[in-house]
Amino acid sequence: MMELDWLGGKIAGEGVLRLSKKIRDLEDVFEDHAAWTSMDPETLVYSVEWTQPTAQDNEGGLFWGVTVIEPGRVGEEFFMTRGHFHAKRDRGEYYTAVQGTGMLLLMDESRSGRWEQMTPGSLHYIPGHTAHRVVNTGQDPLIFWACWASDAGHDYGTIQREGFSHRVIASEGSPRLVPSTQP
Amino acid sequence: MMELDWLGGKIAGEGVLRLSKKIRDLEDVFEDHAAWTSMDPETLVYSVEWTQPTAQDNEGGLFWGVTVIEPGRVGEEFFMTRGHFHAKRDRGEYYTAVQGTGMLLLMDESRSGRWEQMTPGSLHYIPGHTAHRVVNTGQDPLIFWACWASDAGHDYGTIQREGFSHRVIASEGSPRLVPSTQP
Repeated sequence: MMELDWLGGKIAGEGVLRLSKKIRDLEDVFEDHAAWTSMDPETLVYSVEWTQPTAQDNEGGLFWGVTVIEPGRVGEEFFMTRGHFHAKRDRGEYYTAVQGTGMLLLMDESRSGRWEQMTPGSLHYIPGHTAHRVVNTGQDPLIFWACWASDAGHDYGTIQREGFSHRVIASEGSPRLVPSTQP
Repeated sequence: MMELDWLGGKIAGEGVLRLSKKIRDLEDVFEDHAAWTSMDPETLVYSVEWTQPTAQDNEGGLFWGVTVIEPGRVGEEFFMTRGHFHAKRDRGEYYTAVQGTGMLLLMDESRSGRWEQMTPGSLHYIPGHTAHRVVNTGQDPLIFWACWASDAGHDYGTIQREGFSHRVIASEGSPRLVPSTQP
């Protein structure tokens, strides 16, 4: 049993796992490499806390976690997660936002993209065979919870090599979706 | 995309499914049949709202929902859900409570039972092969969210025939776990 701070985006209890991604960990994720190079490499972009109460290869099990994406930009591009397909492609996932505003970018295996607006209370179903990335388009941290199959796994490599179909940039202060020009 | 009222236990959006269980729907669930017979059959015991964004037989999909159990008793026994195993036994599930207090009863296939306290913020992992029932032991509605595999299915029949290993009764106003004497 664990204790959630739902609105604060925290999990307390034994066996909570944590990771964080800083600017230095996210080379080639953002389009503007010169802007990325000029930033403090220790700048926090996002952090994740999650619980794995069962083995990763356990079919039928589930994991539960929370992601906090800081507000910020690399050049004109908003802070975002790396994004991934599930290694086991048919595994779906839920995201639900509790604080902040953002965009959930979705892309199928033929690189067809769509997006959903994330606001406090929004619930998003990510079907199987669909890459997912979250972009914080607001001034405050974007916090969202997730539930996914323990055997889903993560394929970050495909996105790292091929990128997403679209990027989200600041256009006169507002987020705008533009086709990607490079991975 | 759906909108959650997290603390209020509501889902808004297209395709929300709803069910409610009243006293008349729950014959032979509670131990004290005479007390059950004497109650208004239209008394609401619990209600569920959920979303099924994918087919029920879709391996890899997930469903998301919320249950509200009213406060109340049938004789000395607190209001509770019917309880079930998953039809596909290895499928796990998460419950997380947001309002009220209660007990999550868990029972494996050899009828070995255990329980977890439910309070606002508690997160409960229900592993595969484990029957689960929730009991509202408080004075207010008990509200909890759930996420489960779309192909898990529900086996209510086993619990209907064989009951749970334990029941939760009011003992001088406090909840007490007692071994079951009948299904």
